[in-house]
Amino acid sequence: MSNYDFKAVIHETFAKQQFLMHIGAQITALEHGFCEISLPYRDELTQQNKFFHAGIVGTVADNAAGMAGFSTMEEGSSVLSVEYKVNLLAPAKGDILIARARVIKAGRTLTVCNADVFAVTEGIEKLCATATVTLMALKNYTK
Amino acid sequence: MSNYDFKAVIHETFAKQQFLMHIGAQITALEHGFCEISLPYRDELTQQNKFFHAGIVGTVADNAAGMAGFSTMEEGSSVLSVEYKVNLLAPAKGDILIARARVIKAGRTLTVCNADVFAVTEGIEKLCATATVTLMALKNYTK
Amino acid sequence: MSNYDFKAVIHETFAKQQFLMHIGAQITALEHGFCEISLPYRDELTQQNKFFHAGIVGTVADNAAGMAGFSTMEEGSSVLSVEYKVNLLAPAKGDILIARARVIKAGRTLTVCNADVFAVTEGIEKLCATATVTLMALKNYTK
Amino acid sequence: MSNYDFKAVIHETFAKQQFLMHIGAQITALEHGFCEISLPYRDELTQQNKFFHAGIVGTVADNAAGMAGFSTMEEGSSVLSVEYKVNLLAPAKGDILIARARVIKAGRTLTVCNADVFAVTEGIEKLCATATVTLMALKNYTK
Repeated sequence: MSNYDFKAVIHETFAKQQFLMHIGAQITALEHGFCEISLPYRDELTQQNKFFHAGIVGTVADNAAGMAGFSTMEEGSSVLSVEYKVNLLAPAKGDILIARARVIKAGRTLTVCNADVFAVTEGIEKLCATATVTLMALKNYTK
Repeated sequence: MSNYDFKAVIHETFAKQQFLMHIGAQITALEHGFCEISLPYRDELTQQNKFFHAGIVGTVADNAAGMAGFSTMEEGSSVLSVEYKVNLLAPAKGDILIARARVIKAGRTLTVCNADVFAVTEGIEKLCATATVTLMALKNYTK
Repeated sequence: MSNYDFKAVIHETFAKQQFLMHIGAQITALEHGFCEISLPYRDELTQQNKFFHAGIVGTVADNAAGMAGFSTMEEGSSVLSVEYKVNLLAPAKGDILIARARVIKAGRTLTVCNADVFAVTEGIEKLCATATVTLMALKNYTK
Repeated sequence: MSNYDFKAVIHETFAKQQFLMHIGAQITALEHGFCEISLPYRDELTQQNKFFHAGIVGTVADNAAGMAGFSTMEEGSSVLSVEYKVNLLAPAKGDILIARARVIKAGRTLTVCNADVFAVTEGIEKLCATATVTLMALKNYTK
């Protein structure tokens, strides 16, 4: 990994995703093989009961996993989600949504991550979803 | 089904989901066991390459499936996504995103749907994702 | 594809899988992008109600998909299942279990297939499972 | 839970599954919300490289999850796998296959488990698969 600054690259990649910026998602923790994304509540992110929409829950799970996996890839790689599967465990009801993803298996071509999503109300975290995400590293990628 | 107007109930349920309204999703076809959702391109729905974001692709797949499944449930039911799995097959690059979902198995408690998502460019549809969605019917649900 | 005899290679690969031979699975149809596997009932393949075991249902789904995907890969490739997801829709009760898989997206590295599994009783087929399978092609593979 | 002996019921349910008995699977650990299944190597459980077959890997993952989930269900319940998804992370090469499953979310109707599968060679465990399994509790079930 030499002195490749994966954190700078990840923050840059994240910021280029207009959808994530538009909804207000932020990377709130980032380590080699781990990423946390936080998203404060907004009315326009909700379903009929004013809970975070399942599409938003999937979005933060997939992206936290993508960035966690990206952190373990070689310099110059690009990351692509191949598939993601989300189990919705409880209503995503809260002031903030937090997705925490970690790499389960980092491979040359494919990397598999788990992401847990928590809805936070007055500081109390409640697990509301768990996801598995398969990522592909694209090598020698030029933007 | 007697004269239960499932279409009216689905359109009403759909319109109550602020996130779907916010991004501009629309139900463009609806039959018993089938639903199509369309979403015109907007910059704020994109990832770094100006394609529809994977979270948006998952959102329309899950929601089309939810409405397709809902159409087969008893009057007075509410529908909940239990889990969804999306395989991203090609870049979601286009002017409009279309998700078409159909019920594979309608059950008393659980209903399983398939949803295919197409990115449309100048009228040419390209399959960009396929999803499986498991739904649960909540009975005697009072809003 | 020139005159590469993918059918011969697939039958050979299939026959080398001792588990498939042991349970009595057979390829009963094979085309470019399509494979059908059939498995006659045996007591030792059942769960507590004498239905085919869910592990057997997953096995035939995954393998039919693997062979369907393999049929679209370049000569000299080897095929690997990356992940599979099975929705169990109805009891796998019958005299024979049939999995039919088709390629949804054939890619250079990854190929995605759908497989439907039917339990057959006195010639009547009943859909009992549907699966999505992601495959990876290993190139220049030497056995 | 009163004095309901869930362990006895689980061992009995497990032993009634002829397929699991046939391949030699055993419950080697069982607690409330946790189950471990072990399966010694046999030639007839392998694929072309003499590794455990992916269908066998899925079988032990699904069953360990089923028993883990069953342990948290009410007396008199029966358990059904709704869907399972397996990510195959490394070749299942070893003398013994071990699946360890734990409940992530126990619900009245649906319970979600994670299962990790390890291939063990000379006592060294290597993670070869991870699975998510959705279970349904059938109440007042009479055999």
